Amino acid sequence: MFDTPVVVVDAAVMDRNIQRAQTVATAAGVRLRPHVKTHKSSLLAQKQLEAGATGLTCATLSEAVGLSEAGVGGDLFVAVPFYPSPSKLARIDLLLEAGSDLSLAVDNLSVAGLLAIRYPGGGPRLIVEVDSGSHRTGVDPVEALPVAAACGDLFGGVFTHGGHGYPPGMAAAAGADEVRVLAETKNRIEAAGGRVAVISAGSTPTAAHCVGDPVNEVRPGTYIFGDWQQVGNGAMALDDVAVSVMATVISAPAADRFVLDCGAKILSKDQPAWVEGYGHLPQMPGAVIERLYDNHAVVSTHGDRPPMVGDQLRVIPNHVCPVINLVDQFLLTTGDVVPVDLRGHLT
Amino acid sequence: MFDTPVVVVDAAVMDRNIQRAQTVATAAGVRLRPHVKTHKSSLLAQKQLEAGATGLTCATLSEAVGLSEAGVGGDLFVAVPFYPSPSKLARIDLLLEAGSDLSLAVDNLSVAGLLAIRYPGGGPRLIVEVDSGSHRTGVDPVEALPVAAACGDLFGGVFTHGGHGYPPGMAAAAGADEVRVLAETKNRIEAAGGRVAVISAGSTPTAAHCVGDPVNEVRPGTYIFGDWQQVGNGAMALDDVAVSVMATVISAPAADRFVLDCGAKILSKDQPAWVEGYGHLPQMPGAVIERLYDNHAVVSTHGDRPPMVGDQLRVIPNHVCPVINLVDQFLLTTGDVVPVDLRGHLT
Repeated sequence: MFDTPVVVVDAAVMDRNIQRAQTVATAAGVRLRPHVKTHKSSLLAQKQLEAGATGLTCATLSEAVGLSEAGVGGDLFVAVPFYPSPSKLARIDLLLEAGSDLSLAVDNLSVAGLLAIRYPGGGPRLIVEVDSGSHRTGVDPVEALPVAAACGDLFGGVFTHGGHGYPPGMAAAAGADEVRVLAETKNRIEAAGGRVAVISAGSTPTAAHCVGDPVNEVRPGTYIFGDWQQVGNGAMALDDVAVSVMATVISAPAADRFVLDCGAKILSKDQPAWVEGYGHLPQMPGAVIERLYDNHAVVSTHGDRPPMVGDQLRVIPNHVCPVINLVDQFLLTTGDVVPVDLRGHLT
Repeated sequence: MFDTPVVVVDAAVMDRNIQRAQTVATAAGVRLRPHVKTHKSSLLAQKQLEAGATGLTCATLSEAVGLSEAGVGGDLFVAVPFYPSPSKLARIDLLLEAGSDLSLAVDNLSVAGLLAIRYPGGGPRLIVEVDSGSHRTGVDPVEALPVAAACGDLFGGVFTHGGHGYPPGMAAAAGADEVRVLAETKNRIEAAGGRVAVISAGSTPTAAHCVGDPVNEVRPGTYIFGDWQQVGNGAMALDDVAVSVMATVISAPAADRFVLDCGAKILSKDQPAWVEGYGHLPQMPGAVIERLYDNHAVVSTHGDRPPMVGDQLRVIPNHVCPVINLVDQFLLTTGDVVPVDLRGHLT
């Protein structure tokens, strides 16, 4: 028996998820560039590349450096805009010197201009982020042309993140938004004489809905493990969820309540509006993790018979990305240990 | 300039917080046993001991082992109940062999009995957790006596956590609940012939309200750094908050919205009901971090002039404990780096 709390990943389900996403992308004629922020593991990044992924997506330059140092930094896209401070520029230079084919997100005229000046003979490829409806980062589509122009010779394409496709029933419309906004932007830039090589979209919920023309790359991340919010929004089946947090009942102080040792320091407090509680207990599907403290998960039984102190229960986390980022390693059902070698890597 | 996002702690404010809590405890005649789950740092644990703390509180046995390995494991209390699996027992034995004066939380008859059988000649001191109103772990006060009896010779005292004292206006009443429940429990156990050496209570909001008789030990954690929820509930002044997450504006795509690079992977998604948003921006007190993604904090300006891309802003996190647990180290304003050597340590 392993000690709890611990993250366990079903290796067979994970491998099936990797293969299936690759098969769908290949059949649709788009490149698959998995987002490593979900697994934070160069080992699993390598697996995704071996299955046919053409490159990797990162959230930070330090994730990119970690991948490069682990030998999987051949083709990297850092898909979050950044400000080119000296330390960020030093990392970019490091990646270029290491031979990475490096793409970077920009959504700002000044940043695009600064990078164009910094790399006059070429360097990183700049991919302009366009807002397709999530209203997070990304320029309004009508403002993409000047940002693309400011990139100069570094301009490489456009991308979007249809984050508004996460709630139940929204994925198809958000995927269509991604395609429409990228097509409009591409046409506008091409009409001005630009060449738009990369046209990138797609998250785990929206990827299946945006693999049409002109999108030529998708960037899902969560699909490798799944989580409870992806079951709740219909993007993944419960049988395709590879990740569990195994927890032990440490207290059962009342007939309708018990406490697990998987607190917010392993489950995180992510709680999308369409799921109840802080994770799902497949062995007690009616029970709800009502309250989450750093090291306690307080569960209401809602009429189920409470487990005994010492019982181990499986919890499917609401959102897998922050969970993996809280552990230094996780277990596969094969018995192997996967180091989360990109854990942290915030900058 | 440092790279962002990064956790920065004002060393002078932190030192003042350490001293003040010690002074208050000493003046009240109670022992201060700071909770290390806030800072996860053996270096700061050492500072707290040097200031007069009589021992340390941990949330997990692996935190206790980490403290012991760092040379500050002399007097440790693991204040979360656990199930004595072989791996937990191995850690207990390790700590005892290393010479720790070790106290462990129990709130269950079977666990107390198992430990009493496992350590017939003495070993860890067992401290029975009593529920004073937070309804998390802890036995109902009327059930404390049989659990204390099951501890046999290992029984060392009682403790409670008045977690219901966190919301604004609740600290005094919750502190009084802690005192009342512990006094009742102590009297009941003593009437049955038991000796109750340790009577432990008190969190950052309630510690000042429970230092009266019979409480002889308090266990606050957050007081060392402070955070926005402790300002919001009145437990700490804004000037006593030592912790900041320094972040950079990475996108300003609309007049009323900008995006910082401090996402949930550094701020965490903790959001108590009495604070708005996912952290406080002292330089823009009207602005609200409305949405938090893994690597993006989306801020509404609420009429303030938005900052420029590249600007650095200070964010006071809602809850400091999960923030520190997300980084491998943090900066002091002295320029020193503090390793978070107990980061993770979940089991």
